[in-house]
Amino acid sequence: MSLGEFDLIAKYFDRPARRAALGIGDDCALLAVPPGMQLATSCDMLVEGRHFLSTVAPERLGHKALAVNLSDLAACGAEPVAFTLALALPSADELFLDGFSRGLLALADAHGCELIGGDTTRGPLNICISIFGQVPMSPGAGALLRSGARAGDELYVSGKLGDARLALEAFRGTLMLAGEDFDTVRCGMELPQPRVALGLALRGVATSAIDLSDGLLGDLSHVLQRSGVDALVDVDAVPRSTVLRAQPLAVQRLCTLSGGDDYELLFTAPPGRAHQVSAAGIATGLTLTRIGRIVQRAGPRQEAHIGLVDADGRAVLHASASFDHFRA
Amino acid sequence: MSLGEFDLIAKYFDRPARRAALGIGDDCALLAVPPGMQLATSCDMLVEGRHFLSTVAPERLGHKALAVNLSDLAACGAEPVAFTLALALPSADELFLDGFSRGLLALADAHGCELIGGDTTRGPLNICISIFGQVPMSPGAGALLRSGARAGDELYVSGKLGDARLALEAFRGTLMLAGEDFDTVRCGMELPQPRVALGLALRGVATSAIDLSDGLLGDLSHVLQRSGVDALVDVDAVPRSTVLRAQPLAVQRLCTLSGGDDYELLFTAPPGRAHQVSAAGIATGLTLTRIGRIVQRAGPRQEAHIGLVDADGRAVLHASASFDHFRA
Repeated sequence: MSLGEFDLIAKYFDRPARRAALGIGDDCALLAVPPGMQLATSCDMLVEGRHFLSTVAPERLGHKALAVNLSDLAACGAEPVAFTLALALPSADELFLDGFSRGLLALADAHGCELIGGDTTRGPLNICISIFGQVPMSPGAGALLRSGARAGDELYVSGKLGDARLALEAFRGTLMLAGEDFDTVRCGMELPQPRVALGLALRGVATSAIDLSDGLLGDLSHVLQRSGVDALVDVDAVPRSTVLRAQPLAVQRLCTLSGGDDYELLFTAPPGRAHQVSAAGIATGLTLTRIGRIVQRAGPRQEAHIGLVDADGRAVLHASASFDHFRA
Repeated sequence: MSLGEFDLIAKYFDRPARRAALGIGDDCALLAVPPGMQLATSCDMLVEGRHFLSTVAPERLGHKALAVNLSDLAACGAEPVAFTLALALPSADELFLDGFSRGLLALADAHGCELIGGDTTRGPLNICISIFGQVPMSPGAGALLRSGARAGDELYVSGKLGDARLALEAFRGTLMLAGEDFDTVRCGMELPQPRVALGLALRGVATSAIDLSDGLLGDLSHVLQRSGVDALVDVDAVPRSTVLRAQPLAVQRLCTLSGGDDYELLFTAPPGRAHQVSAAGIATGLTLTRIGRIVQRAGPRQEAHIGLVDADGRAVLHASASFDHFRA
């Protein structure tokens, strides 16, 4: 017996709304936004073979699909409230739906973010989540934007970068990893932890923020572009795991600088707020590493420039292209 | 030269935000919701071959992709504010993007609804739009819900039903239409007009509403289910076009009762508000037709029942299944 569209929603996704004024089951969901707050929203579409491999466990895929959206709220300093899920599936595969919905809803519950609506259809596998958060409207401690970086600010990153890309290279067969190491970096790729608490702790502290989805250099260039500034990055300071440190330096630099799928936060703050940054790291249990600084853009260039130096202060050459879905 | 992801967004979709606090280009978009209002949101995912045919002109597809979402806001009585677009494309086809974005943004402009963000990726063609509207929180004149129909209410529908399904049957080759007739009903299928103004006019008048996307009987059953009531429908009163009237009665009934893709509003109102319903029709330039009434559910049945009668009051038999993406 094949599961119908409405049964599928009822069985795997329909749960009573707690925060929303109206959840699943009507033409629209309704959300009240508290006075003084504004709504932050983002959406990500995940396609098999581009954003995840066919080998991923459905539960991990459910986790990741929501994690990448929560990561956008984190980058904005917004508190998660709710999300919608649009899902195209080749068939109503109950094994897939069971795992997928468990991974998805477990992460949703961990962040108090409820599923309030969506759409299901038959079609090539495609997962599109729109997420809603709330953030104060107050100018000094409101949303973290990409546009606030100023010359003199220090550049920080949370956690460690590059494991997701290292796992991808292992899947592609371009390098070999021992079983345990592979499992570790595979977790980095398949179970990213959105830095929501850090985003909240950085409100009023960071001058700009972005989440790392397309690779450090590409995402940094978005911040520089929106802020009208340049940056200097100490490539050896970029934090990486023990597993990645065991790789040749070229692999380490590829994975940390142009990796993608890290879902850590990259942010800027003036030197005078170093102790507040440090406090945010302690409060959230995350290592925050200073990896460079923001500098004035020299002359009338339109394009942002990222100067790369190593631990000895020597210039490093590296192709800094961001991941591009239509060029990759 | 192939168009990259960020160029594609810049060229076809990035326009300055007017209503939103922050539009395209950051991790999240920001929307302020005025005091006393709440946010209404809905999302629809469109897949080739299921929601549209490969023969559709890109401009019409852009129109329809947004129209089906605006129609959800209409059914809720919400005023359109903004939307996000997630788009998976097999390639960065500029001919497609040019037409698609023109159709999409023209309808968006017509409704003062702005594009504030989204996602683009390579993959099998998939269009997922999330839409945002605002609706007063006041109990008497707030959002129109599916759950408010009461025994004694009259059942109304806007416009004419069935042309979209008739066009689909002509495309499928199950019937033939003269060229001009085909063009007319094809417009019904490819260029639905969301009844946003009507939804707004029905706030405080209608007791329940839904937009017709899966067919009259299927969508009516959603209202009855949520409201805990049954309905009687006069199948001959269901409004239809001259083109559809020229078809055999069985085709007329199939198209009007189980058609799908009509995007008219189905709503209920107490008999005492008939003049207000009439005024809403005049104000919006739409024909509103009374097609039946809501009756009490007899006994402890879980399933809603729709009694069908013809103009002579005789019972009509008709398979009342709604369109189901996993059973179709």
